[in-house]
Amino acid sequence: MKVHLITVGDEILIGQVIDTNSAWMARQLNLAGARIAGISSVGDDEGEIEHALEEALKQADAVLMTGGLGPTKDDITKKTLAKFFGVELEFHEPTYGRILRFFERLGRTATPAHRQQCFMPVNATLLLNKMGTAPGMWFEHKGKVIVSIPGVPYEMEYLMEHEVIPRLKRFFPGLPIAHRTILTAGEGESKIAERLEYLEEELPPYIKLAYLPNLGQVRLRLSGSLPDESALNRELDFYAQKIRETLGSLIFGAETDRLEAAIGRMLQEQGKMLVTAESCTGGYLAHLITSVPGSSNYFKGSIIAYSNEVKMKQLKVSPQTLETHGAVSEQTVAEMVKGAVELLEADVAVAVSGIAGPGGGSPEKPVGTIWMAVGNGEKVLTRRIYAGKDRLKNIEYSSSHALNFVRQFLLQDD
Amino acid sequence: MKVHLITVGDEILIGQVIDTNSAWMARQLNLAGARIAGISSVGDDEGEIEHALEEALKQADAVLMTGGLGPTKDDITKKTLAKFFGVELEFHEPTYGRILRFFERLGRTATPAHRQQCFMPVNATLLLNKMGTAPGMWFEHKGKVIVSIPGVPYEMEYLMEHEVIPRLKRFFPGLPIAHRTILTAGEGESKIAERLEYLEEELPPYIKLAYLPNLGQVRLRLSGSLPDESALNRELDFYAQKIRETLGSLIFGAETDRLEAAIGRMLQEQGKMLVTAESCTGGYLAHLITSVPGSSNYFKGSIIAYSNEVKMKQLKVSPQTLETHGAVSEQTVAEMVKGAVELLEADVAVAVSGIAGPGGGSPEKPVGTIWMAVGNGEKVLTRRIYAGKDRLKNIEYSSSHALNFVRQFLLQDD
Repeated sequence: MKVHLITVGDEILIGQVIDTNSAWMARQLNLAGARIAGISSVGDDEGEIEHALEEALKQADAVLMTGGLGPTKDDITKKTLAKFFGVELEFHEPTYGRILRFFERLGRTATPAHRQQCFMPVNATLLLNKMGTAPGMWFEHKGKVIVSIPGVPYEMEYLMEHEVIPRLKRFFPGLPIAHRTILTAGEGESKIAERLEYLEEELPPYIKLAYLPNLGQVRLRLSGSLPDESALNRELDFYAQKIRETLGSLIFGAETDRLEAAIGRMLQEQGKMLVTAESCTGGYLAHLITSVPGSSNYFKGSIIAYSNEVKMKQLKVSPQTLETHGAVSEQTVAEMVKGAVELLEADVAVAVSGIAGPGGGSPEKPVGTIWMAVGNGEKVLTRRIYAGKDRLKNIEYSSSHALNFVRQFLLQDD
Repeated sequence: MKVHLITVGDEILIGQVIDTNSAWMARQLNLAGARIAGISSVGDDEGEIEHALEEALKQADAVLMTGGLGPTKDDITKKTLAKFFGVELEFHEPTYGRILRFFERLGRTATPAHRQQCFMPVNATLLLNKMGTAPGMWFEHKGKVIVSIPGVPYEMEYLMEHEVIPRLKRFFPGLPIAHRTILTAGEGESKIAERLEYLEEELPPYIKLAYLPNLGQVRLRLSGSLPDESALNRELDFYAQKIRETLGSLIFGAETDRLEAAIGRMLQEQGKMLVTAESCTGGYLAHLITSVPGSSNYFKGSIIAYSNEVKMKQLKVSPQTLETHGAVSEQTVAEMVKGAVELLEADVAVAVSGIAGPGGGSPEKPVGTIWMAVGNGEKVLTRRIYAGKDRLKNIEYSSSHALNFVRQFLLQDD
């Protein structure tokens, strides 16, 4: 089944909102055996929506539209769909009842705009939206499927999972397509590609290898398509295993795994508690670690020492170190690790101090200079990296790098 | 000028990468007076790229393509473009020289794949990419413009800012289009829409008002287009002022401002230092605050008290409180605030403790129950909110809510 995604909303065309929905939908649809033929974004404009829909229907079996169903006046997807099918909009009493009860439970009252949401094209099969007020709509049209669901991410996710994907699977019998994703950290795309050149030459034409670099990590994706699904899976497993053998400890996981989750598993296996002592990363490193469910099993907490005062008073970094070497130095991060291990009674600590920018740089320590340290009570390893000039990117990149530094330390320390 | 954006890459169609580039490009192009006619994503496939390009050229004056220029074998944009224009690829010596010098400076060596990057369609005007190895390409074709640049975000941003946008402005004389964005926190989309219904009825047909809700904040965007640019700007200012008068203290800023930056300005004006004491937000709140350049002027640091041990030992939350009321309680967050103010010698502290999920919920305290407190040495305000069931969403939503709680405290406390 080929699916085309259409995102409706001026907010995307003027760049005020990043389209995260399409990636989520694409991922789930791929897992369900669909192929995404294309993704397009159009404005809140009848003509544009209609044109995009017609174009999408030329190449896809199903078109999934998100957005443009809210209670405010700029939302016109529903009217456009009714016009496209040549049908009327009709007030749908059960939906209105559901909205009234929804607001009653929240102790709020519905507005007239919510009543407006209850007019539906008469040919729509309504999809129950337990997460919000606007139902999804399912249309069957000349052997193809058109779906319209709200653009609010958790409403979209609920409807996709519980309504749209199960219905699509029933409507279109699946075609085998499969992926294997292998996750690496610590080496660049080109170097990895060099080490895998031999393998790329061995790959059969129905299997492709792609490199997806991001913030010091490179994801390797093998994609294949064959009528014989079990043969396809065997072949993908075979090549994935070859990649694992070639890249060894560069690999930290597979599929949708994350570096922070991989470290969590290592910590739990080794029975260790981690803490962070952060300056330039300002809590982002702790956030990555605690974004993993169950992280309280191996993560105690952090000292975010944004000011030197906190570095000295809480983390016991000596004033001499700060004066002689500066807050962004090997000595400071090493003392931050020792201080954090002691203060928070941890087994492993990781510390980061750097110049995230845009200000604070100097000829000796330009913006992007990041020192990091990882260690326990006895041993501390340090490393300097040069990130870029963008503040947020530097925070993200150095946090990702620090996570991999922890991983390397745990590999050694095991 | 109408611009169409095309993102090339299987990684987007299978949902492994979120297309953040298009939003950034759309924002910058809008500021430059362009209108985005549409955005589309296609796979690493010659036929799909060519079809998307042809479709885009039907409705747009310029087509900007990102992605598919990397050194690995899955990148084929360049070959497709040469075929589309019916021209040859030619080795470009200066680009290769630049790549060799680039790697020399980094103390690394170029791979054969990098040499491959230096074959260029002969009709391309090369755009110097100071952030990476692959140059951008500018083509003029039947009075229209086609641009291809790398998809790596900071390379794309550099090329857009320094090469593509200045050239587009020279090639297409501008048409006036303008926006005003007003940022609110603390009230939902529908309630705001109700308060602004009178204004929507007054708006002339060439000015539109859109509501963009996200994580407890709602952005209001006025967009207009008129031949007379100064009349347009006067009118937009007039309606923006009306919105400000109607919504009062719900508004924290305008345009690309952020709540965390608005709070930073208030803290600096009031000469106060802020700290955070975080449990369920795990550093994300501190991250939001420190993502603002210059935040060290008003932010000292945090205690991320993920374990109860850290809550007791560092933040001096009493064991009785934890035992009687639990870590997620009004009493605990109030004590966290007091402890953080004292320990880190701060003027204002904000504390958050909640059940982010997916585990840890109970009938009395379901997943999504979040307690937060804000205060100084004397006064502490507390608040309970119910977020949702998604861990990351709960962390983001409660951090956003906590920031607005700090703002409300500072408004009162001034």
